[in-house]
Amino acid sequence: MKKIEICLTPKLIPLYESVGKVVVIVDIFRATSTMVTALANGIIGIKPIMDLETCKTMREKGYLIAGERDGKQAIGFDLGNSPLPFLGGNYHGKKLAMTTTNGTLAIDTVKESASQILMGAFINMDSTIAYLKDTKEDLLIYCAGWKGKFNLEDALYAGALANALKDQYTTDCDSTLAVRTLFQTQRNKLKEFLSQASHSKRLQNQDIEKDIDFCLSIDIYNTVAVMEDGLVISR
Amino acid sequence: MKKIEICLTPKLIPLYESVGKVVVIVDIFRATSTMVTALANGIIGIKPIMDLETCKTMREKGYLIAGERDGKQAIGFDLGNSPLPFLGGNYHGKKLAMTTTNGTLAIDTVKESASQILMGAFINMDSTIAYLKDTKEDLLIYCAGWKGKFNLEDALYAGALANALKDQYTTDCDSTLAVRTLFQTQRNKLKEFLSQASHSKRLQNQDIEKDIDFCLSIDIYNTVAVMEDGLVISR
Repeated sequence: MKKIEICLTPKLIPLYESVGKVVVIVDIFRATSTMVTALANGIIGIKPIMDLETCKTMREKGYLIAGERDGKQAIGFDLGNSPLPFLGGNYHGKKLAMTTTNGTLAIDTVKESASQILMGAFINMDSTIAYLKDTKEDLLIYCAGWKGKFNLEDALYAGALANALKDQYTTDCDSTLAVRTLFQTQRNKLKEFLSQASHSKRLQNQDIEKDIDFCLSIDIYNTVAVMEDGLVISR
Repeated sequence: MKKIEICLTPKLIPLYESVGKVVVIVDIFRATSTMVTALANGIIGIKPIMDLETCKTMREKGYLIAGERDGKQAIGFDLGNSPLPFLGGNYHGKKLAMTTTNGTLAIDTVKESASQILMGAFINMDSTIAYLKDTKEDLLIYCAGWKGKFNLEDALYAGALANALKDQYTTDCDSTLAVRTLFQTQRNKLKEFLSQASHSKRLQNQDIEKDIDFCLSIDIYNTVAVMEDGLVISR
């Protein structure tokens, strides 16, 4: 049977083998939720980029550019890290270059080794689950966290995914046991539970409660967000 | 109000401030459980040591020497990392030098910065809780984990401690919210839940189920294990 593991923060990724595995990157607030939203609303491909300067130069190549640091839109960028501007197909048919505090860093550390990279979010969870049931490789769920630390929303999504896939994957990973159980006991009060979380609080302070609410909506899109030749596309 | 944080593995410790804080080191299977047992059964002081060779030289200084690597007793040592040989006061009045895979490493990383270091275990949990209610400093619970990774038993103890202290400490730490909630939902089936854990399984394979059972006994000792001048003593 296939195996599942969960890496709770980027600081722990050196302890996990990603070679030949399917890796699901999770940055619920907000990079991966925003990528899924963008693709579901007509963006044709997303290039994750590590640094602000390189990302900025992509405008000359016809990309829309999105940049976020510490939860805020970076100066000189078309967009920040909010999923909401993509709703309604405002940017239909465009390509997006994107750099964020945690999410794009996580992608970068596994892009050479993983057999496939997916972007995970609550808003397209069922489609990702269905897709993963048909893959053959072992699975590593990789939580982007917050500046290297564990965070609750990424861990709960990882737990939700592990819970839905428990007939397809075995595990001997304690992180998986912990967050799967946490999800099982909190699934009926997910938003309430996450409202205690530090990251939620931080975002609330910046008046982006609408973003939080949206990112915790479950299964509103059928998009599966997969990385191909350096570009995240919808499949 | 005092603040509480939980560091889930040694790999994450650089992200936490330990200066001036009370730090509780947690290595349930088995370093901190064994230290508490030793002190409760007549050992007068324990010197945690990083490497096997230095630890061995302590025999000449009149210490009993305990050495463990990868769950097994190291060659040439009086004892490994099991709490059971200390029962019944077999080593009453002696000093112990000890080196283990995860626990002594964790101690080493905070010994210069913390205002106080305690050893946490289920077997003396209530005494540690009572002691912490009277301290003035912020608290960092530091899980030793397994070779850098998150492990379930240390996390659950951290959650239990955080839960018992929630009227004395505030938190904005997601790890604390997660493991506190995990403990709250699993407290009535702790042994059953932990039996799924990888580390439990690994120890079971080495015929040390008795150690596991013992380390998950709750509040059998009144010992508070505190580090003073490089020596862990009973207070």
